[in-house]
Amino acid sequence: MTVAILSIGTELTRGEVTNTNATWLSEELTRLGVDVTEGATVPDDPVVIEATLRRLAGAHTLIVSTGGLGPTTDDITTECVAAVVGAPLERDQASLDAITARHARFGRTMAASNAKQSDFPRGATVLPNPHGTAPGFSVNIGGARAFFMPGVPGEMKPMFQAHVAAAAAHHVDGGIHQIRIRTFGMAESAVNDRLAGIETKHGVVIGYRAHFPEIEVKVRARGGDDETAKRVARAAADEVVERLGEVVYAEGDEDLAEAVAAELRQRHLSFGTAESCTGGLVANLLTNAPGASDYFRGAIVAYANDVKTAALGVPEALLAAHGAVSAEVARAMAEGARRALGVDVALSLTGIAGPSGGTPEKPVGLVHFAVASAGGTTDRTLLFPSGRPQIRLMAAYAGLTLVRRIVRGGHAP
Amino acid sequence: MTVAILSIGTELTRGEVTNTNATWLSEELTRLGVDVTEGATVPDDPVVIEATLRRLAGAHTLIVSTGGLGPTTDDITTECVAAVVGAPLERDQASLDAITARHARFGRTMAASNAKQSDFPRGATVLPNPHGTAPGFSVNIGGARAFFMPGVPGEMKPMFQAHVAAAAAHHVDGGIHQIRIRTFGMAESAVNDRLAGIETKHGVVIGYRAHFPEIEVKVRARGGDDETAKRVARAAADEVVERLGEVVYAEGDEDLAEAVAAELRQRHLSFGTAESCTGGLVANLLTNAPGASDYFRGAIVAYANDVKTAALGVPEALLAAHGAVSAEVARAMAEGARRALGVDVALSLTGIAGPSGGTPEKPVGLVHFAVASAGGTTDRTLLFPSGRPQIRLMAAYAGLTLVRRIVRGGHAP
Repeated sequence: MTVAILSIGTELTRGEVTNTNATWLSEELTRLGVDVTEGATVPDDPVVIEATLRRLAGAHTLIVSTGGLGPTTDDITTECVAAVVGAPLERDQASLDAITARHARFGRTMAASNAKQSDFPRGATVLPNPHGTAPGFSVNIGGARAFFMPGVPGEMKPMFQAHVAAAAAHHVDGGIHQIRIRTFGMAESAVNDRLAGIETKHGVVIGYRAHFPEIEVKVRARGGDDETAKRVARAAADEVVERLGEVVYAEGDEDLAEAVAAELRQRHLSFGTAESCTGGLVANLLTNAPGASDYFRGAIVAYANDVKTAALGVPEALLAAHGAVSAEVARAMAEGARRALGVDVALSLTGIAGPSGGTPEKPVGLVHFAVASAGGTTDRTLLFPSGRPQIRLMAAYAGLTLVRRIVRGGHAP
Repeated sequence: MTVAILSIGTELTRGEVTNTNATWLSEELTRLGVDVTEGATVPDDPVVIEATLRRLAGAHTLIVSTGGLGPTTDDITTECVAAVVGAPLERDQASLDAITARHARFGRTMAASNAKQSDFPRGATVLPNPHGTAPGFSVNIGGARAFFMPGVPGEMKPMFQAHVAAAAAHHVDGGIHQIRIRTFGMAESAVNDRLAGIETKHGVVIGYRAHFPEIEVKVRARGGDDETAKRVARAAADEVVERLGEVVYAEGDEDLAEAVAAELRQRHLSFGTAESCTGGLVANLLTNAPGASDYFRGAIVAYANDVKTAALGVPEALLAAHGAVSAEVARAMAEGARRALGVDVALSLTGIAGPSGGTPEKPVGLVHFAVASAGGTTDRTLLFPSGRPQIRLMAAYAGLTLVRRIVRGGHAP
């Protein structure tokens, strides 16, 4: 079985939108055990769309397409498919009723152009869209099964899971199981080196997903039945976790901020930050997840030195003696935040994010961290490679990692 | 002239990396006046790569490719091109010297595998890479000119600008000019409606780029000489700006945070925030740009009510009478931040980001803002559609927009 992903839309070929649909579909199909052998991106041009459909149908057994199902005159995917399969368009009353009802529910009158979204090539299987007005459909084109879905990610993803995933998995023999391992703190090439030999030893495939500054390791086992695949993946994943050691912080969907939140919640510890170079980024990462008010009480972003003194109680003499970017000031900031915010655990960060402000003694990328708790104050110093946004994000992640280790180590009673 | 973008790499067809290179190249080529008629994404598989190269060379006049030029055994683009053009690989001594020197400069010993990065099909033009070890190259395949560049964005982009852009522009007749207009506060469909008729009236093409929550409007003029294109684009852009009114905040690369920063800097006004529902997001957006310390002094993220009282001086009675999400508390937070941070202008935000915590009176998406300055305090209330990250980002942008209007209006002396 070979699979092609077809992405239709001039907004893609003009670079107005990044094709995250193709990424998501590729990842899902790979997880299901299907190899994507081609991705094609084409503009809303009937000649190009029809030629591409014919070519893909001649080369692949499954075509998964997104885009061009909207109500405007630009949206021509359905007409092109009808032309390629040589079938007339026919109106589907159930789809028209659903589109009409959806408009009524949101108090809008339906434009005449929306009606065409209920037209499909004769013989097509309609894929209902509970999240929008554009239903999808599937047809056979020559020997290929082709699925057409809307380009809106929030409509496409549930449609794929409901209708396309099963069709793709149907072609895969035997069991398949994937375990995702989340890491922070080691470069992808170093992770790769550490995991040398695991693929052949366990008969699995190891994939990576770099979502800066995290590296996600995906362990996929295939063959036998589902139970066998699960057991093989688990054994390989256990070895991955053992070899990577403390850079592993979770499995599955949890990001580092959520993992730290879970540790704090579990121990009923309240938390806050004192941030200089990260400018509120740590607080933002933590509060982006729902339910942060369970443990997160607040943050003091002390960018100017006199805010460090006024809001965090960092002594002016300490700032004068060591400079704002120093382990001493980081410790005072964390302890000050613990008092000012009334929290059990406080993290501070002070550093030089650049591009200017570096000196030979304190170069761009230098960051001091401290975590203050009832168990005392711990500080760390790290130097990150350049790039202001990268330094800030790496610093935020390193700070959260320090919090996680101290809390898990039982050092923040 | 027709152009294809070829993206090579199994990390793409497995969905481990989003193909932002194709987006960037599509946008740049479109800006240069070249229509991208096809994007192809293929794995590191010689059969697929060679077949795709042959197919694209038969259909297009320009091929712009990225990926597969690295030192590992997976990186096979060069070998595939050599096979397709029927030329042997030859080592380029200048490239080998440059790769060796680059390794020496970073104190690393060169792996034997890096040497193959200086091999090119006989007759190829080498494209030097000052930002990494992998040079690019260009060859003719049949009637098409094909450029091969590394997949690392920081290496690919300067190589494109130095070597590929001129070759692409060479095929475009006459002048071309593009003006980018940045907006926040109006949906893309509404922007589109407002601009109806401008394309035909001025003879320009209007494109959009949605970078949530911003909508960028791109006005492209083509034809005549460069001066004519520039004049036509300017006239159309002026009408776009006039029709869109105050949702336009800048032209070019400046994002909203930078536009607000420029207004504050110009007037020598210091700034800080008091954030509840946005959890430090506004401070983070402002400090992500270099040089924020010119005007940004700090932020108090008061997530818990008693932090609002302790750190911002919001009276407990006010919180009890109106609730934390109220115009009254927003005003007290902004005034408290102005005092606590010692700033000329302070912005506060308090709202319900969800998904839980909403009530019929105070639904999810409700946000109160206030801006306090020497000229007084102004508050606003907005209700955003759901999605926690979206509500937070829209609130941050709306808050910054309020700051911009007040500062520009001269109300913050």
